[in-house]
Amino acid sequence: MTNRSPINFTRGIPAAQSFPTKQMIEASQLALQQHGSVILQYGPSYGFRPLREWLADWHGVEVDSVLCSNGSLQIIKFICSVLMQTKNKTVFVEAPTYDRTITMLQKHGAKIVSIPLQTDGPDIEVLEHQLHQHQPAFFYVIPDFQNPAGVTCSREKREKLIELGRNHGYIYLEDAPYRALRYRGIEEPSLFELAPDVVLHMSSFSKLIGPGPRMGYILGDSGIVDRVAEVAERTYITPGLLSHGIIYEFCRAGHLPQQIERLKTLYKPLLDSTLAAVDQYLPEAESTKPDGGFFLSVTIPKPVTTMDVRNEASSYNLSLSDGRGFFANGGGDNFLRIPYCALTPEQIRDGVSRLAEIVRQLHPTANQKLTM
Amino acid sequence: MTNRSPINFTRGIPAAQSFPTKQMIEASQLALQQHGSVILQYGPSYGFRPLREWLADWHGVEVDSVLCSNGSLQIIKFICSVLMQTKNKTVFVEAPTYDRTITMLQKHGAKIVSIPLQTDGPDIEVLEHQLHQHQPAFFYVIPDFQNPAGVTCSREKREKLIELGRNHGYIYLEDAPYRALRYRGIEEPSLFELAPDVVLHMSSFSKLIGPGPRMGYILGDSGIVDRVAEVAERTYITPGLLSHGIIYEFCRAGHLPQQIERLKTLYKPLLDSTLAAVDQYLPEAESTKPDGGFFLSVTIPKPVTTMDVRNEASSYNLSLSDGRGFFANGGGDNFLRIPYCALTPEQIRDGVSRLAEIVRQLHPTANQKLTM
Repeated sequence: MTNRSPINFTRGIPAAQSFPTKQMIEASQLALQQHGSVILQYGPSYGFRPLREWLADWHGVEVDSVLCSNGSLQIIKFICSVLMQTKNKTVFVEAPTYDRTITMLQKHGAKIVSIPLQTDGPDIEVLEHQLHQHQPAFFYVIPDFQNPAGVTCSREKREKLIELGRNHGYIYLEDAPYRALRYRGIEEPSLFELAPDVVLHMSSFSKLIGPGPRMGYILGDSGIVDRVAEVAERTYITPGLLSHGIIYEFCRAGHLPQQIERLKTLYKPLLDSTLAAVDQYLPEAESTKPDGGFFLSVTIPKPVTTMDVRNEASSYNLSLSDGRGFFANGGGDNFLRIPYCALTPEQIRDGVSRLAEIVRQLHPTANQKLTM
Repeated sequence: MTNRSPINFTRGIPAAQSFPTKQMIEASQLALQQHGSVILQYGPSYGFRPLREWLADWHGVEVDSVLCSNGSLQIIKFICSVLMQTKNKTVFVEAPTYDRTITMLQKHGAKIVSIPLQTDGPDIEVLEHQLHQHQPAFFYVIPDFQNPAGVTCSREKREKLIELGRNHGYIYLEDAPYRALRYRGIEEPSLFELAPDVVLHMSSFSKLIGPGPRMGYILGDSGIVDRVAEVAERTYITPGLLSHGIIYEFCRAGHLPQQIERLKTLYKPLLDSTLAAVDQYLPEAESTKPDGGFFLSVTIPKPVTTMDVRNEASSYNLSLSDGRGFFANGGGDNFLRIPYCALTPEQIRDGVSRLAEIVRQLHPTANQKLTM
């Protein structure tokens, strides 16, 4: 079995062939020619002004509401510094949620409250119950093609979330790096579009152009953005202006819409292969049915756990994430995230087939459909 | 007076004409052509491997000892996380020292002990005295063309520092961004070259190529570097690989030595203008006499303070830093940093002349030479 080729289901990274290298070469030349003395120099911690203006225009907001950083994870760190300065360190997250956010929140001493995620968004009943017990500093949500679950929040729930935020006086930190990557179906308005007064919107070009330039950004209340800029300046003085300049020239040249279409063409068949493989090999497992993004997730049928499967997986040359890492307050024993964007259809099919083999090997009679 | 043109003596930034824009355009093309799928992707938090190899070769160390980040200030933050995890939060610094390091240390809850800086380096007598009272987690030093004082540590004191570090069991964090910019005189070995076992060496390309790419790095014990890499990964996953790739191709093409020579040719006359202007207009003030770097410093003759001068300076259209910001434990009332690299000889002469005018206006009889 060990002579099978390795298949990695652990990291949500873009496909190597997704990078618009040729246009980035043009953009880097233009950026240095046009803005060399700005993007090679120190500058404001808000980021490269023309890129902020471009993003402001794209999102229909004022430039004062936009800050560009080095990737978006670090923005979550800045938000922790800004919003958790007071004595309230309670932060709500979805369960499951992005594992690096959990680690970041824990590092900042957050008291994390998990709201179970359903296939149409956070469990509103549990949320209402928790809001009677806790006043969150903020609620971190990934409404579109959620990492790691792959689900998208319904319109109805988005409106309910906003209503609860307003009534209970807390804000949302909406993380939306996958939002533009919808392969089918109809886009819902972002939480920020519905209610810019109670939402900070974060995104990045890591999934649209590439992670290497490290260009994440945040939109929202300019008072909060100003405080983020102060923390950013204390941390690194100036963000990566050379990258900002290159990304700006890429966007200004009009390449972004075409690049997004190219990604959809590249990734949609991979999502379809994943859905088909899960359907064929793991019909007994509950799985999500995303319309976009980088991930779907599977619930391994009990009594087998993800840990059991991972213990066997190395002899199948299959790498899997520990599902429990996506749950801040326990759980996730049967949760498995399947990132598909950096794999071929053959690898996906083969990987899911190995996964099914392992599950059957561990529990030969596992064939009934089980719920989460 | 207010119709005078503005002169800014506040920030230590490179001259706009110092940037090697043409070579950076070539380097960015090459970097994306040769390494596009690596530098546009996620990667190890240690930074772009070929750049680490180039730096390892340049400094004569193993590649495992090198980590590249986004600028060097953030590396100080990582070092705080790594070395101040235990119950010992005492950190020694020079007085004066880099103001942003002081802020960073304070933010991390450091108990800062200041060692007075003399014209040949830290006051060894005070250091020995403080070492009987405190065991530092580390001692942050800038031995070459110190920011803000402009002084360089003598060979004798470098050896004494190493001896004390070894005897008392603490390490040095040596910050050396100006080291390559020696306009005359003979280079001393770095602390790291003298004793790599007790020194972490930090530098950056902010002063050699430009700050906009944000390329700072640290050299030292690979065990500590590994722990820095863990904190870096938790903070931003991957540093700015696009910038790293461009800087790498710039260095690989052999441009760095020529660029450093160009900077010396550009900055030496500016240092000379500053020395001459201070000598002519402020003969009564004690000042440092650097052989390189970005700064010299002046002690405003008592009873006038830097604060008095700053209060008057706006009506002279002159911007000055608050000297007290460079002293972690008080002092600096008469300290003034003069950065000269981004000014013309005329601006330097005019600025120092205005400064002298203000001092005389505040204290007409101030003409005796006073000590710090």
